[in-house]
Amino acid sequence: MNTIGIGLLGAGTVGGTLIKRLTTDHAAIAAKTGLDLQVRRVAVRDPGKSRNLDIPEGMFTTDAQSVIDDPEVDLLVEVMGGQEPAGPLVLRALEAGKPVVTANKELIAARGYDLIAAAEKSGVALLFEAAVGGGIPIIRPLSETLAGERLTRVMGIVNGTTNFILSQMTEEGTAYEDALAEAQELGFAEPDPTADVGGADAAAKAAILASLGFGTWVGLDRVPHTGITEITATDIRYADDLGYTIKLLAIAEDTDNGVSARVHPVLLPHAHPLSAIRGATNAIFIEGPAIDTLLFAGPGAGGDPTATAVLGDVIDAAREILAGAQVAPRIRFAPSSLADFGSVPTKWYVRLEVADLPGVLAQIASAFGEANVSIKSVWQEETGEEATLLIVTHLAPESEQQNALAAVNELDCVHAVAAAIRVESEEA
Amino acid sequence: MNTIGIGLLGAGTVGGTLIKRLTTDHAAIAAKTGLDLQVRRVAVRDPGKSRNLDIPEGMFTTDAQSVIDDPEVDLLVEVMGGQEPAGPLVLRALEAGKPVVTANKELIAARGYDLIAAAEKSGVALLFEAAVGGGIPIIRPLSETLAGERLTRVMGIVNGTTNFILSQMTEEGTAYEDALAEAQELGFAEPDPTADVGGADAAAKAAILASLGFGTWVGLDRVPHTGITEITATDIRYADDLGYTIKLLAIAEDTDNGVSARVHPVLLPHAHPLSAIRGATNAIFIEGPAIDTLLFAGPGAGGDPTATAVLGDVIDAAREILAGAQVAPRIRFAPSSLADFGSVPTKWYVRLEVADLPGVLAQIASAFGEANVSIKSVWQEETGEEATLLIVTHLAPESEQQNALAAVNELDCVHAVAAAIRVESEEA
Repeated sequence: MNTIGIGLLGAGTVGGTLIKRLTTDHAAIAAKTGLDLQVRRVAVRDPGKSRNLDIPEGMFTTDAQSVIDDPEVDLLVEVMGGQEPAGPLVLRALEAGKPVVTANKELIAARGYDLIAAAEKSGVALLFEAAVGGGIPIIRPLSETLAGERLTRVMGIVNGTTNFILSQMTEEGTAYEDALAEAQELGFAEPDPTADVGGADAAAKAAILASLGFGTWVGLDRVPHTGITEITATDIRYADDLGYTIKLLAIAEDTDNGVSARVHPVLLPHAHPLSAIRGATNAIFIEGPAIDTLLFAGPGAGGDPTATAVLGDVIDAAREILAGAQVAPRIRFAPSSLADFGSVPTKWYVRLEVADLPGVLAQIASAFGEANVSIKSVWQEETGEEATLLIVTHLAPESEQQNALAAVNELDCVHAVAAAIRVESEEA
Repeated sequence: MNTIGIGLLGAGTVGGTLIKRLTTDHAAIAAKTGLDLQVRRVAVRDPGKSRNLDIPEGMFTTDAQSVIDDPEVDLLVEVMGGQEPAGPLVLRALEAGKPVVTANKELIAARGYDLIAAAEKSGVALLFEAAVGGGIPIIRPLSETLAGERLTRVMGIVNGTTNFILSQMTEEGTAYEDALAEAQELGFAEPDPTADVGGADAAAKAAILASLGFGTWVGLDRVPHTGITEITATDIRYADDLGYTIKLLAIAEDTDNGVSARVHPVLLPHAHPLSAIRGATNAIFIEGPAIDTLLFAGPGAGGDPTATAVLGDVIDAAREILAGAQVAPRIRFAPSSLADFGSVPTKWYVRLEVADLPGVLAQIASAFGEANVSIKSVWQEETGEEATLLIVTHLAPESEQQNALAAVNELDCVHAVAAAIRVESEEA
């Protein structure tokens, strides 16, 4: 039997589920893979805490370094999260020649370049299938199966919390605050939801998708992100009338000016496959000249799906250990320029509160025109002394769209730019 | 630079596209993977044929064995299709210690067990991502990422021709023959469409999905299959009224009685994600206790997407060659019983033409009851002297459903069992 000793950093939701699976499914995994996977040592903050896990209490330690150093630990699973102290620990394990499996999106997005280089130098694997899309296999398809495809765009619903909130707002007409409260009650949102609703969580995933999809390293600090806190039920309703669904997307593109990654709410045409992804489900949509489009959908979070992804990586790393060779890291990062966000073509839905007077539309149209932004459609609703204008623009560089918005906002006849949300995946 | 020599068996649609991609995308692939992939020798039936490929004419040969024997060929790509002579050639290459990438679903489904064993014995890779789902990454996710999950069911729309025909019939009300003719005109169906419309193509894919999904070898001869030739626009309309879409599915399940794989048309609830898959698109839906459900959708055929999948495998095999180790084959086939189809729980939609007389429903209901099949719903439409009965049963073993159908067919009051189609993915 091919025994592989596993050390864990962290035994929270994902770590605990992984330990349970390694115990209860031990025979099934051995039959399918020929591997005898054994947990050897687990670093936790509080070893005395009751965990209901079927492993000896003596395996728990507060000393993470001792897990790395344990000669019986052949590979390390990092499921503690965050950059510190996970980063230095993972680096030390790789430098010590031990393969690492991690579910830590923030760590990979922020320091992946150096960690992947360290893994390559030591000739061991650094695998992170669980870092994006939870239980959805996406890292491996992107970096292996599609390695020969010149992808043009990878975009996805990669944050279940925000998709749940937007789905509730869309389907029930709920206000943002109420949908957030419901998500918190149901356990879909953290007590402090900032990282989710502000877009930072999705930004880390966008950075990883862009880096793997285009073979150009995109660090977390290069991903502009906006969350969903400003989205109103009003705009969701107007968007629906115009044929769009509002989603928070991570968008990674290979543009004429270089690789770009960004996260923000978008109006997506109803017919787009990502528009149909409801609740906490995640989905990733991939475009390329040869494969046309691919859609992957499934559970983006949760202990069970995430543990399945970690386990797949563990099995893969174990096979490499037994084969005595290191096939991963599976992607090189070619020197290539990143696009400045200002140069990326975007198009916008803009909701304006304006004075209901003759000539107002002409003033607004010429403000857009002077900023080189063409208007695709205008829809007007009169509400007494004021009128609401819904404008959808044609594609233009982000910087020109921003200039147009600023110019429109300066006009006396415009009482408020009540909403401005980008429109995605629609021609021009 | 890490140069890998590639030999091809076949230069048809997929092979020709692959050769083009290896030429035009050579630099991009090298930048992303660090690999210098070079075509060395190509076996074809007619070396003189004009192919419009940017490789020296001298590379073409009619002697397939010479491709395998060429010392400059490090790995073999088999894209000729069929079992003969592809089977013995692939076997000889593996025995000679050369990794093989193939897109040949029929070969893998029929002889995969022996070929995988030969690959394992020689310590080289046998990869076949393109064999199921064309450009959709599914083989690798199933056999690697999900290796630690105890899957319960894998089902999919794995034949684009039949899905195109059924979509046309559903959306346009077209008759089967007209939809087939349209598919042929558009190039979605072969001049001889038998393998597609009869279900044999999907059966090969079902065998592979079952084998990899459950780690139990399911040979092609163990997959009962029915095609779509008996599906009528009438039943598509009735099914729609009852809340179902008719699809041809490959279904692989881990049942109480063992692993089962089958292909047949099904009524699928409208809300099921596979119901929304239109036209020639393929999709695979995976169920398991931890991952809940996963959906993969994309182009299931065509030179470009299939070549992308083959290329991904080539890159993977090349990495293993350079690493000097063989990590694949990635799955073991545990000895495990296959379920007899008669024992597999199914449920049915049955359309009966019956005499419009009192007591007819009672006779039919008791025929079902005596065969231990419960009726879930009955819908009756009177058409003069006859009536149409639409019956949907509850789940019962396939053999009992068949007994019920035979008994009903014997009744004098039943003029015809006009249609009988299984219902999938609905409780009980």
